[in-house]
Amino acid sequence: MRMYDLIYTKKLGGALSPEQIAFWVKGAADGSIPDEQSASLLMAICWRGMSTGETLALTLAMRDSGKRLNLTSVPGLKVDKHSTGGVGDKTTMILGPIVAACGVPCPMFSGRGLGHTGGTVDKFEAIPGLRVELSEEEFLRSLAETRFANSAQTADIAPADKKLYALRDITATVESIPLITASIMSKKLAGGADALVLDVKCGPTAFMKTLEDATTLAESMVAVGTAHGMQIRALITRMDAPLGWAIGNAVEIMESVEILRGEHADSELAEMSFRLAAEMLIMGGAAKTLPEAQAKVQASIQDGSALETLRRFVALNGGDATTLDDFSRLPQPGQVVDVRANRDGYIAAIDGRALGILAMDLGAGRRDRTDVLDLGVGIRVLARVGQKVAKGDLLFQVMAKSNHLVVPDLYLTTLELTMTQPKAAPWLMATIGC
Amino acid sequence: MRMYDLIYTKKLGGALSPEQIAFWVKGAADGSIPDEQSASLLMAICWRGMSTGETLALTLAMRDSGKRLNLTSVPGLKVDKHSTGGVGDKTTMILGPIVAACGVPCPMFSGRGLGHTGGTVDKFEAIPGLRVELSEEEFLRSLAETRFANSAQTADIAPADKKLYALRDITATVESIPLITASIMSKKLAGGADALVLDVKCGPTAFMKTLEDATTLAESMVAVGTAHGMQIRALITRMDAPLGWAIGNAVEIMESVEILRGEHADSELAEMSFRLAAEMLIMGGAAKTLPEAQAKVQASIQDGSALETLRRFVALNGGDATTLDDFSRLPQPGQVVDVRANRDGYIAAIDGRALGILAMDLGAGRRDRTDVLDLGVGIRVLARVGQKVAKGDLLFQVMAKSNHLVVPDLYLTTLELTMTQPKAAPWLMATIGC
Repeated sequence: MRMYDLIYTKKLGGALSPEQIAFWVKGAADGSIPDEQSASLLMAICWRGMSTGETLALTLAMRDSGKRLNLTSVPGLKVDKHSTGGVGDKTTMILGPIVAACGVPCPMFSGRGLGHTGGTVDKFEAIPGLRVELSEEEFLRSLAETRFANSAQTADIAPADKKLYALRDITATVESIPLITASIMSKKLAGGADALVLDVKCGPTAFMKTLEDATTLAESMVAVGTAHGMQIRALITRMDAPLGWAIGNAVEIMESVEILRGEHADSELAEMSFRLAAEMLIMGGAAKTLPEAQAKVQASIQDGSALETLRRFVALNGGDATTLDDFSRLPQPGQVVDVRANRDGYIAAIDGRALGILAMDLGAGRRDRTDVLDLGVGIRVLARVGQKVAKGDLLFQVMAKSNHLVVPDLYLTTLELTMTQPKAAPWLMATIGC
Repeated sequence: MRMYDLIYTKKLGGALSPEQIAFWVKGAADGSIPDEQSASLLMAICWRGMSTGETLALTLAMRDSGKRLNLTSVPGLKVDKHSTGGVGDKTTMILGPIVAACGVPCPMFSGRGLGHTGGTVDKFEAIPGLRVELSEEEFLRSLAETRFANSAQTADIAPADKKLYALRDITATVESIPLITASIMSKKLAGGADALVLDVKCGPTAFMKTLEDATTLAESMVAVGTAHGMQIRALITRMDAPLGWAIGNAVEIMESVEILRGEHADSELAEMSFRLAAEMLIMGGAAKTLPEAQAKVQASIQDGSALETLRRFVALNGGDATTLDDFSRLPQPGQVVDVRANRDGYIAAIDGRALGILAMDLGAGRRDRTDVLDLGVGIRVLARVGQKVAKGDLLFQVMAKSNHLVVPDLYLTTLELTMTQPKAAPWLMATIGC
């Protein structure tokens, strides 16, 4: 088999066989196929696409490049969640404890942030002492004892994806439905969960700009999961603003805990987290209908069991659980700067991507892989889409290092202000799958 | 400037600025841009194409990556020829001496063969003693004294093209009109000629399969040449058979000399060589009209001045010119095997590509860059398109090493035989340019 022939076939729009795809993935991972040939094939895939069969073969080849986690020692259907990512997205920290508290084991692997999107691992690391890179043994213990486990992805899970993703990252070949599908699903399949809920973000600053694109990605992932016998369902959710009021690390822990305490119950963040949790409960067999699942979610908030699950998870994995009840023990900013409206109007949209970059600039995110984060800094977004504002209203609180020069105008430019009240749009755009 | 942005722009179908293209070509050549990024951009160019402006910028950046030859010490307009290549194509060896004999300086750089296509440099090397890798000084001396110079391309001409071509070769990105255009034209512009005649081959076994594709390539090259102030004209020529009766190295020298002696005057090879030579004479200012130019070409054959120019070129550059009059002094095969028709019919087409591969197998061409050629072996193609053959007719003579097992059936499968006489099609399909 010659790599050249694979590239040439795909360049002309042909299909690759499972054997050819396995040959490529193995060669890319072990270095026997030069990166320039993989790069050329990756761009040809962006160009010509891949059939469901090819995408499934790519997913399986990447999954099989490393270890597969065996979760069968933990009883019950294990349910995972994946989000395509957005600024302020802290749903994992909220729904994981809820789902676990309702009796469904929730094994989750998360990433570190790079660029404008934060990583769940970084956020958890704001809790002093919490180990975020668990060994397989620690991960299984956490899942067995609290029904919730969250860890940074280990290097032995789908190493071929890691290798190819690094190549995609520098060759502008990240944006491709089959490549995104295979990258996500190979890791999810290797992670050993029985079911998966997908949160596919859609909006001008999300990865998928249109409902059509988001639907295509969701359908592609659902098809690959289903073909592999995984229960899978996707929610397509609108992203026209950061999710929740907090952008940063310690502040996102605070907001998550507040939601678990029952605060901000009518916020989009709470609604979305609760809905995703409910979907997971149905998949895990803890509820038959959506209303039943939603009632269980509400109960876990009301009786404090969800928050208690988070406390136990934190304590079990070396973290200081008292921080969850006393936020002053979490990392703090050196200064807080208020940003106020400089004119009247209605807020039509909030550019989450721009705020993500501002947060990165504050030290909450990484520009380069080696950057060290300041876990106490971040942005409190008080502005809400649809809100009427008057000049002088408090819109943001910027939590910065003491020597950071905060320029309020930069924050104001992330708001789209209109003269008339924008029409409210529901956050749930569509659902796809079983 | 970041290479990533160039790839991303082209991936989305955008245009690259001349500055961006120069940045890429420089970085690809000096190694500061990794090959995987260049590979990805090359595939994106295959996908999205390039405007004439981009193609021109790419051509100039590759030209300027190396040395430019200065031919102004030789008086007159210098006229070059380029062919997109085909099996049995020995027009350079025929028209170069003709054009020179008619008073127009003809500076030519040629390549070595790889795969099924032979290289003019290899063919010239069949003449004992002839130096085919001339220094700049030797090249200029040959041009000044005989008005004909032919040499292997030196490494300092368009090194960026050399680098990128090697990358294209393994990443299935050779077939792209703008990349082909820039590769050819960068070397031609660096070579210093004032005018260029292009022979773009078209046919099922040629690089360009359809008249449309061939026209697109010809127009692209003419546009780039014209934009640079070069006189340029393209002939699109049909390729449904090898060109001439000889495939190999010494045998192609023999056939070229026979044409220069006035033999095979009605063959397609002679007609095509004479027509290309006539076009070159017009461009070089030696004739005003095609009939006038064609008369000069005929005169150079009749009076022996063309053949005499070849003799002088060979002798000046260390070759044994007596070989041109006594072919027994050229490299010879170990055995000659006759291949005869095994049934009756009309010859509708001859697969030049397949015969090229058979010739390579005999030792006349290289499978790998390091293969050493047997300059005496080759194929004498007696079959002609349109010819009626009867079982037993002599169709090929295979000139092989004495220990080579010749399988006649392999040669017969290169012929497309029909029951009715195929319609004759003219070899000249179109002309493009001034």
